[in-house]
Amino acid sequence: MKERMYRGQQRIAALDPRDRGLAYGDGLFETILVHAGTPVWWDAHWQRLARGCEVLGMALPDPAFVRRQADELATGCARGVLKLSLTRGIGERGYAPPADAVPTLLLDLGAAPAAPPVAGLHLRWCDTRLSIQPRLAGIKHLNRLEQVLARAEWSDPDIHEGLLRDTSGRVVSATAANLFVLREGRWLTPRIDGCGVAGICRAWLLDHVAGADETDLSVAAVETADAVILCNAVRGILPVAALEGRRWAIGTPVRVLLHAMAEAEPAFAHR
Amino acid sequence: MKERMYRGQQRIAALDPRDRGLAYGDGLFETILVHAGTPVWWDAHWQRLARGCEVLGMALPDPAFVRRQADELATGCARGVLKLSLTRGIGERGYAPPADAVPTLLLDLGAAPAAPPVAGLHLRWCDTRLSIQPRLAGIKHLNRLEQVLARAEWSDPDIHEGLLRDTSGRVVSATAANLFVLREGRWLTPRIDGCGVAGICRAWLLDHVAGADETDLSVAAVETADAVILCNAVRGILPVAALEGRRWAIGTPVRVLLHAMAEAEPAFAHR
Repeated sequence: MKERMYRGQQRIAALDPRDRGLAYGDGLFETILVHAGTPVWWDAHWQRLARGCEVLGMALPDPAFVRRQADELATGCARGVLKLSLTRGIGERGYAPPADAVPTLLLDLGAAPAAPPVAGLHLRWCDTRLSIQPRLAGIKHLNRLEQVLARAEWSDPDIHEGLLRDTSGRVVSATAANLFVLREGRWLTPRIDGCGVAGICRAWLLDHVAGADETDLSVAAVETADAVILCNAVRGILPVAALEGRRWAIGTPVRVLLHAMAEAEPAFAHR
Repeated sequence: MKERMYRGQQRIAALDPRDRGLAYGDGLFETILVHAGTPVWWDAHWQRLARGCEVLGMALPDPAFVRRQADELATGCARGVLKLSLTRGIGERGYAPPADAVPTLLLDLGAAPAAPPVAGLHLRWCDTRLSIQPRLAGIKHLNRLEQVLARAEWSDPDIHEGLLRDTSGRVVSATAANLFVLREGRWLTPRIDGCGVAGICRAWLLDHVAGADETDLSVAAVETADAVILCNAVRGILPVAALEGRRWAIGTPVRVLLHAMAEAEPAFAHR
C-alpha cells in the first residue's frame, strides 16, 4: 500500500483527530481503478467529486495538483485501486462548516480486487433499507453506515453482493455496485434521485448502450428480468448468475455489454 | 485542548488513515459536560454508547478502562466538554465490518461553550430534512452530513439554532439539541423512532418532569405552543425566545424546569 495525505497542497504525516471527515463523515471519496500506471476514467471520477463538493459546499482542490499526485502514485502499478478521499478539513466542535476550512486529501493505492467468479455473482436481498435523502443522492459522501449495516447482514463467502431497496420499497443498487436488469430487450437501472450513488460505470453504460435507461424497479421487476448485471468503476461489468432462488445463464446480451466495454476501455479488456 | 487516542487499550499517537470512522463514519460519539473535574451524566452517556455499539455490531470497550481515562483527563477541569469518539477501528477496503476489528477510542477535552443568551434563543426552520432510517434512529453515530447541511443554511450569529423536520414533515429536533414544547400544560418532545438523537438531557426531562411525553409534532404544533425549550447534555435546558416571527416570554413553566434540573444536577446550578 502506498499512501499520501495533504492539507490543501501541503503533505502531512498524520491525520488531525479533529478532522471533520472523522467527526461527521463530512467529505467524499472515489475508488478508482489503476491500469498500466494510469487512473482509469479519471475525468468522470473528478466530475463526481466536483459535484459532491458543490452539494456539500466544500472547496474543490486544484485538479492539476491532485492529478499529478495520483499519477505519481500510480506510476509503475500494473493494476490496482486508488482510493481518493477528500474531507472538509479540521474543525472545532460543532456542525457549522468553518468558512476557512482547508480540505484534507488522502490518496491510497492498494491491490486490485480478486477477479470475479467466472460463473457470475450470487446475490441476496438485504433487509437494511436505504433512507431517502434527495440532497445527498448520487454523490459519494462518507456517510456509509447503511452500506456497512447491509454488508454485515451476511458472511457466507459464496454470496458476493446484496441488493438494497429504499425505505419506500424501490430497488436501488447493491452495497458497492450499481444494478442493471434486462427487460424487453432494454437495460434498465434504478434512478438515483432519493438515495444511492451515481456510479461511473453506470453512467458509461447509460451513455454507450442503445436503449439503456433509468427507471423505477420493484423486487418483482428484478426477479423476472431476462438478465442482471452489477457494475462499478473498479470491477467493470459483473454478470449475475443467481439472486436467492432465481438463476440466470450468462447469455448473449451480457456478452455484448462486456465486449463493448472491453473495446472502449483497455482496462476492461483482460477478461 | 487535551487529547488521547487508543487502539483498544493501547495508547496511539496518530490515527490510521484506514480508520473506518473516517472511511464510512463507522462509529459513535458522545459530547459530555465536565464540571468540577467530573464527567456529568456519565452513566447515561455510556448507556447510549452501548446501545449504539449493539446497533452497529461493534465491540463495547471496557467501561472501567474508559471511565478511568476520562476521569484522568477531566481532573482539574472546572468546566469543559469531553468528546468521546469510538470507531470500529482499522479496515481494509470494503463495507464488510472486519470480524477482528479493534475499536479506536478518542477522548478530547475542550472548553465549555459560551453561556447561552439570557434572553433566550432565536431559532429558524431549516430547509434540510432528516431522512427516515429507523435502524439508526436514536444512536449518536458519526454519519452527520444532514446536520452539517442544515447548520450551513445560516451564518447570522443572532440565529442560535435551527429546527429540523424529517422527510415526512414531522418536527424532530434542532441541529444539535432536542426540542420540547409546552401544550395544554404538558411538555412534549418528538418521538425519535425514524431519525434524530435520543438526547441525554431529553431523557432526563422525560423521566423527571410530570406529564412530559413523546408525541408527533407538526410545525403548527411548535408555533402555537405556549413555551419552547431546547436541551442537550452540555448546555442543559435552553429557553427559546423566538422562532422566526413567533416570540415567547420566558415564563414560570420554563423557570420550573430550570430550577428542577439545577436542584438535581449541580453542574446546571450555576445559572
